[in-house]
Amino acid sequence: MLFLSEQNIKEAVSMKDVIDAVDATYSVYASGEFQMPERMHVQDGDNTLLLMPCFTSDAIATKLVTIFPNNETHPTLHGLVVLSDNETGEVKSVLNGSFLTGMRTGAIGGSAVRHLAGEQTSSLAVIGTGTQGFYQTVAACTERPIEHIYLYNRSQEKIEAFKTAILNWIDSPVQVHPMSSAEEAIRDADIVITATTSKEPVLPDFPDLLKNKLFIGIGSFQPTMREFPQSLYSIADTVMVDTEHAIAESGDIATPLEEGWINKEAITTMSHHVTSESQIYSRKNGTILFKSTGMALFDVVVANLMYQKAQQNGTGTNLSL
Amino acid sequence: MLFLSEQNIKEAVSMKDVIDAVDATYSVYASGEFQMPERMHVQDGDNTLLLMPCFTSDAIATKLVTIFPNNETHPTLHGLVVLSDNETGEVKSVLNGSFLTGMRTGAIGGSAVRHLAGEQTSSLAVIGTGTQGFYQTVAACTERPIEHIYLYNRSQEKIEAFKTAILNWIDSPVQVHPMSSAEEAIRDADIVITATTSKEPVLPDFPDLLKNKLFIGIGSFQPTMREFPQSLYSIADTVMVDTEHAIAESGDIATPLEEGWINKEAITTMSHHVTSESQIYSRKNGTILFKSTGMALFDVVVANLMYQKAQQNGTGTNLSL
Repeated sequence: MLFLSEQNIKEAVSMKDVIDAVDATYSVYASGEFQMPERMHVQDGDNTLLLMPCFTSDAIATKLVTIFPNNETHPTLHGLVVLSDNETGEVKSVLNGSFLTGMRTGAIGGSAVRHLAGEQTSSLAVIGTGTQGFYQTVAACTERPIEHIYLYNRSQEKIEAFKTAILNWIDSPVQVHPMSSAEEAIRDADIVITATTSKEPVLPDFPDLLKNKLFIGIGSFQPTMREFPQSLYSIADTVMVDTEHAIAESGDIATPLEEGWINKEAITTMSHHVTSESQIYSRKNGTILFKSTGMALFDVVVANLMYQKAQQNGTGTNLSL
Repeated sequence: MLFLSEQNIKEAVSMKDVIDAVDATYSVYASGEFQMPERMHVQDGDNTLLLMPCFTSDAIATKLVTIFPNNETHPTLHGLVVLSDNETGEVKSVLNGSFLTGMRTGAIGGSAVRHLAGEQTSSLAVIGTGTQGFYQTVAACTERPIEHIYLYNRSQEKIEAFKTAILNWIDSPVQVHPMSSAEEAIRDADIVITATTSKEPVLPDFPDLLKNKLFIGIGSFQPTMREFPQSLYSIADTVMVDTEHAIAESGDIATPLEEGWINKEAITTMSHHVTSESQIYSRKNGTILFKSTGMALFDVVVANLMYQKAQQNGTGTNLSL
């Protein structure tokens, strides 16, 4: 059994590898050749344990996540992914699930940039500079020659640490600009990434300011959460989701449908887009809205890639069960 | 995070330690201070993945088990237990779940021997010489001065390997007797352990042969499975289960209830027995039937004990996530 820590995973795969795995996941999703039961949710007071198993024809992975919102000195989330052989049931690998989730969620945004952003896109706004915002930024910079990153966060003190971490990770001479409002942050940006858990839109409701940009919404994963303003739906040329689950799960899709701002027929899935090559280049202009809530299928494909790459590189700790 | 292999667990705990943990589990079960949701079952053709989380006031454990019945060169079952801190959600330990399950299932039988067998019991019959039968035998020998072990298995070739393994584990000068029928095996035995997955009783239906013995049924974990014959229910002075779940789960309790061979009121739980000390010694005679189907609560208490003992001994592999 191969144990893979955050450090091992970093050594074994690049963000581009993980974006490739996300694209491969869309093909598996389109083929229907997987089994992804509804996740198991155990509540203990304020604390939550989530169990997310998924079977593909290549592997079985189960992600275990604990969410302890009252943690003060420890992180709120802890995760582990157990990868099993789908021929024998043997445990092949145990991976740091928090880091895997960060990388794969970043890569979902990175895949959206790959398929939906103009080739020469050089500017990026990030609203919400927590862990998810960080991996989104890394992934966007992996796919496009980003020169300017405009950051906005409600609490300003997070921004400096974020800036330092991004400059450590990214080799290219990118300029990072902390901004004092979301409005200022998005003004000169071609790509806008929102990565907050807000219940109210975090972007200004000004159609002129929103036009001709690619919006990537990562934060809202419950029907009560929303990051995008109403007018974005009236000007959007394309509304895309990572999976059909996002339609019910996120307030950024569920609310606009309920309120009649968009029709369900207008929503396309990234799996359809990625597996229909003819459309890929036709989409890279206009106002595009991409909303992701993720799914366990990403985890199994990404975990299996990390395991295979680590094996090839001799990375990780081999353990006898 | 501390990784514990089979070898590490063997170094960290004795079977007696695990029997103590099983007894401690009965107290937790009686207190009601735990959360044990129904396990999650994912079916993929003939293959099964089971996810069994459980919270106590001391720890959180999730057992993952794969059951691949068509495996030829690999074991059918593979398991892992993930132990998390119930104050922070952090992963504290990952343990070999197959070995943990074997030890704790053996210890459930061992606890029954501790509380229900006469102090000087020296003979034991084991029907079914697979993995479960093996740990049952080790646990029984841990609790009583067993001198004679009578083995019966449908396929004779398993018996020699079983005999060798038992003599390797047990220090005392025990004699192991392979027998050619269940009837012969139980004739001179004070304790009878059944550890098969039979759908038909594996013991002869002769009341005179069954009288004044302690029967421990470990094998039948589904309503369609049965190991005990009908007349055992008419002569049994005590019918006990490890948990109330066993009543519906096992054909050894469900069928006798349906057929009217016993009344529900006649069934007691081991947790009631262990936590009501006055009764303990009064039960150690007559014909006693104990049926176990296990539960995730045993796993969390046992996993936490293994983790704590391993930490004290400096056993296991410390891993940075």
